[in-house]
Amino acid sequence: MSELLNNLYGEQHRLCSTPAGKVTVVLSSERPIDLFELEQLCDAVGWSRRPQRRVKRALQNSLLLVGLWRHDPRLPKLVGFARCTGDGVVDATVWDVAVHPLYQRAGLGKQLMSYVLDTLKAWQVERVSLFADPDVVSFYEAQGWELEPLQRRCAFWYAS
Amino acid sequence: MSELLNNLYGEQHRLCSTPAGKVTVVLSSERPIDLFELEQLCDAVGWSRRPQRRVKRALQNSLLLVGLWRHDPRLPKLVGFARCTGDGVVDATVWDVAVHPLYQRAGLGKQLMSYVLDTLKAWQVERVSLFADPDVVSFYEAQGWELEPLQRRCAFWYAS
Repeated sequence: MSELLNNLYGEQHRLCSTPAGKVTVVLSSERPIDLFELEQLCDAVGWSRRPQRRVKRALQNSLLLVGLWRHDPRLPKLVGFARCTGDGVVDATVWDVAVHPLYQRAGLGKQLMSYVLDTLKAWQVERVSLFADPDVVSFYEAQGWELEPLQRRCAFWYAS
Repeated sequence: MSELLNNLYGEQHRLCSTPAGKVTVVLSSERPIDLFELEQLCDAVGWSRRPQRRVKRALQNSLLLVGLWRHDPRLPKLVGFARCTGDGVVDATVWDVAVHPLYQRAGLGKQLMSYVLDTLKAWQVERVSLFADPDVVSFYEAQGWELEPLQRRCAFWYAS
């Protein structure tokens, strides 16, 4: 089993704990992300679509891509995703954290975030940031993220 | 003069307007940044030092490096700097905006930021973010940056 998982998901993969262990779910930063599968996942969580050539470029410019896979020896299914940008030294920023609705409420989002942070810690990144929509602020607060510290102010400039 | 400037600073360089035109100051995203010169600039603005190997890796992982150069045909001097990380599509983040104290209060910081934003606009980046220390918040507000919009909350995780 272990060799099969290494072949499918790379040596840095991590098995997720799932309720009653009914399914095998695996985190991987090494298994390539298929753009069509990622688009289906984003559709499932209700995100607006972006042109695939732009998504492709954004993924190429990202520091870290993490997939959450419903294990299947023939065809693993992408059921979650997160990516990071940044310089990988001073700062990294987490984006596009998604778990398929059918796989939510099982602690997988938390395990996905732990995997992301553990990878960034291994790189000795000094600070990790993210921009949370109001409905998921409590999710990150519960995991020890600090909101808008007094020392700094976030500022934004929008293209539109 | 124009060909000389192109050779020194690349074809995307921009001449800065300076008070009384006493000195020639040039913005460039193409002229390579020397790590020792950057360290001297950071010393001059009072930033704490980082190990050069980490700075080197952070610069390599950055999307955009912009130098502000006091023009000299033999040896241009680095008097300002800014860099961006991000995916260059959905988001970019501006970091390490510095102008040497001897060159401050001449509108060069504003011109540096305009050059950064114009470059990102040309890439069609959707959103640009930055984290401002409290003492420079007004600098960015005056240039039309939006502070901590209600839609999102910034969150941070620190290595230490």
